[in-house]
Amino acid sequence: MKKTYLLAPGPTPVPEKVNLDMAAPMIHHRTPQFSKIFAEAAEDAKILFQTKQDVMILASTGTGGMEGCITNLFSPGDKVLVVNGGKFGERWGKISETYGLVPVWLKVEWGQAANPADIKALLDKEPDIKAILIQASETSTTVAHPIEEISKLTRDRDDLLLVVDGITAVGVYNMPMDEWGIDAMITGSQKALQLPPGLALVALSDKAWKANESSKCPRFYFDFKKERKNLANQTTAYTPAVSLVTGLRSVLQSMKEEGMENVHKRHNRLARATRSAVKALGLKLVAPDAPADSATGLFVPESVDGGKLVKSLRDDFGVTLAGGQDDWKGKVVRIAHLGYVDTFDTILAIAALEMALKKFGHDVALGKGVAAAQEILLEAY
Amino acid sequence: MKKTYLLAPGPTPVPEKVNLDMAAPMIHHRTPQFSKIFAEAAEDAKILFQTKQDVMILASTGTGGMEGCITNLFSPGDKVLVVNGGKFGERWGKISETYGLVPVWLKVEWGQAANPADIKALLDKEPDIKAILIQASETSTTVAHPIEEISKLTRDRDDLLLVVDGITAVGVYNMPMDEWGIDAMITGSQKALQLPPGLALVALSDKAWKANESSKCPRFYFDFKKERKNLANQTTAYTPAVSLVTGLRSVLQSMKEEGMENVHKRHNRLARATRSAVKALGLKLVAPDAPADSATGLFVPESVDGGKLVKSLRDDFGVTLAGGQDDWKGKVVRIAHLGYVDTFDTILAIAALEMALKKFGHDVALGKGVAAAQEILLEAY
Repeated sequence: MKKTYLLAPGPTPVPEKVNLDMAAPMIHHRTPQFSKIFAEAAEDAKILFQTKQDVMILASTGTGGMEGCITNLFSPGDKVLVVNGGKFGERWGKISETYGLVPVWLKVEWGQAANPADIKALLDKEPDIKAILIQASETSTTVAHPIEEISKLTRDRDDLLLVVDGITAVGVYNMPMDEWGIDAMITGSQKALQLPPGLALVALSDKAWKANESSKCPRFYFDFKKERKNLANQTTAYTPAVSLVTGLRSVLQSMKEEGMENVHKRHNRLARATRSAVKALGLKLVAPDAPADSATGLFVPESVDGGKLVKSLRDDFGVTLAGGQDDWKGKVVRIAHLGYVDTFDTILAIAALEMALKKFGHDVALGKGVAAAQEILLEAY
Repeated sequence: MKKTYLLAPGPTPVPEKVNLDMAAPMIHHRTPQFSKIFAEAAEDAKILFQTKQDVMILASTGTGGMEGCITNLFSPGDKVLVVNGGKFGERWGKISETYGLVPVWLKVEWGQAANPADIKALLDKEPDIKAILIQASETSTTVAHPIEEISKLTRDRDDLLLVVDGITAVGVYNMPMDEWGIDAMITGSQKALQLPPGLALVALSDKAWKANESSKCPRFYFDFKKERKNLANQTTAYTPAVSLVTGLRSVLQSMKEEGMENVHKRHNRLARATRSAVKALGLKLVAPDAPADSATGLFVPESVDGGKLVKSLRDDFGVTLAGGQDDWKGKVVRIAHLGYVDTFDTILAIAALEMALKKFGHDVALGKGVAAAQEILLEAY
């Protein structure tokens, strides 16, 4: 017998009930039966996004939603400010270049958040920049960028959009799209939404819809105007991912019952508990100044090979965490708090980390991280 | 109590076992555990496609695969011959136009198959045409285009590709990609593959991979070169649709056990039985000369409103068939034979059609269509 546990920053565990809902007999997508499911999911997604705008449900992973934001809002030659503080920031730039946009890179050190003053300086220097492309939570570095502060630079300008990859932020912490004036926000199914990968959700502001009218990049599969038109008829432009949409309705219903504020509090509590455990164990957080509540990253002790540690955690202990990427390969462990994860998942992840570090020869006071986490996790009881 | 039955040309029923396989605990996609599942699915997909080439597994529906074939093989300004004999033929042209290609339309009457001589004449007239874009099975008209014949026009020419939407053909009838020299072939998960919508499978010939090298259309989410590179490492460029890929492995395993030839024979038997039933009931097939084995279309009697008939079949009888599209709206019923459908599904669909026609005032000899179908269906026992 070997039980396994998944605490990587996506895909995340799927609740048993949702798996059963998705295993319901297949139904045709052009029927009132499916339209009802689709419409309920789309309506509840507005609560998730904190928006009055339509939330489009696309049959793709989050990267497809990112591509759609580029091709539906911009034209070749458009200048865009790309906040590049990790793998996913870099992706914004690569997609932009693919479609002939001109990225103005704002390089941010890994583990640091973007500084709104640096963004403002770039915008002042290059007044024809059409958008800021950024992550809310940069999954590769476990950093939360200060979206609310940054939104103050864009919300009163008609000619400047704020495009936010919220893939590991929406449903994790407060991202009130309309209140902050975010112009495009994206999430994916396999993060806070507790579903398998295969859906991207995207919403646009009025300002972004206006930009869509003059955008000249080519698009067909990800055509937001066509999706919006179909949404009004409770359907999608092309065949929807029926089972995943059925799961989406189910998950959003549960999140509504829990209350979005409580969902955010849960993620925050697990994140704070994990950060406290990391400190108690004398380890260093990778993003000490602006940690995201989606996942907690830590540097492994120098004597330990982080790659082997993560592999042993997965293969020996049965606990899947994530390692570091690029420069951080072999040096970092990331523990996720996303989605269907609770108090005891977090405790077991910390316990497993302690045990694996000990097994790898690091001098660990077993239970010390767990105890620090427990102090905080008790808040919920 | 109300039991429901799904016999529309996609989505199609998902086997109970496959639903359970897809409901297995979520696993991370960058692990040996998932790589094994992915590699087995990708390997068995070669048997499905009858190819030695890599089969890419994309997190999108079939239309995404079609878009990928356009953007990965061609450049703006390229002339392509579009066989337009239905909704999906038209889609090839629309995608081509979106990316700046120049479609040369070959209009084919709905219900008819493309004539290879007409294609040849167009190719002779416009020698700079770079590809033929066609459906193997045009789902909207239930027509099978003569792909083998058409492949003879392209296979010996280095400068001409044959790009086949096999979404409702692959796994339905014989489509030996390598033997015929098809240069790009696409299918989707929710047809013969018995899965929910959300996956597109695509394979390219050497000639198509060569065309990929000089293709200049922009692409990011659907980047075949990047997918092929990742396939070599048993993974995908972006997050794969983990649960659907798990289902794909399971379904392909079952199809292998059944034997691909038997899978094709099954579809053919159900299709012949249904066509025989339609004739026995004195009704007219919509594609009498070149019917596809994916679905059988028939004209409803003039006295009957086809839209209301299909609605009553679904809502009163619990049997979901498909109606007609565009000009055929309200005039046509389509009964699918795709995927997890057997003898008695086919019989119940015919029985339901007879009963609904009678309910709508048409003079039907109840059981006459069923009997005609039974004669053929008995072949399997």
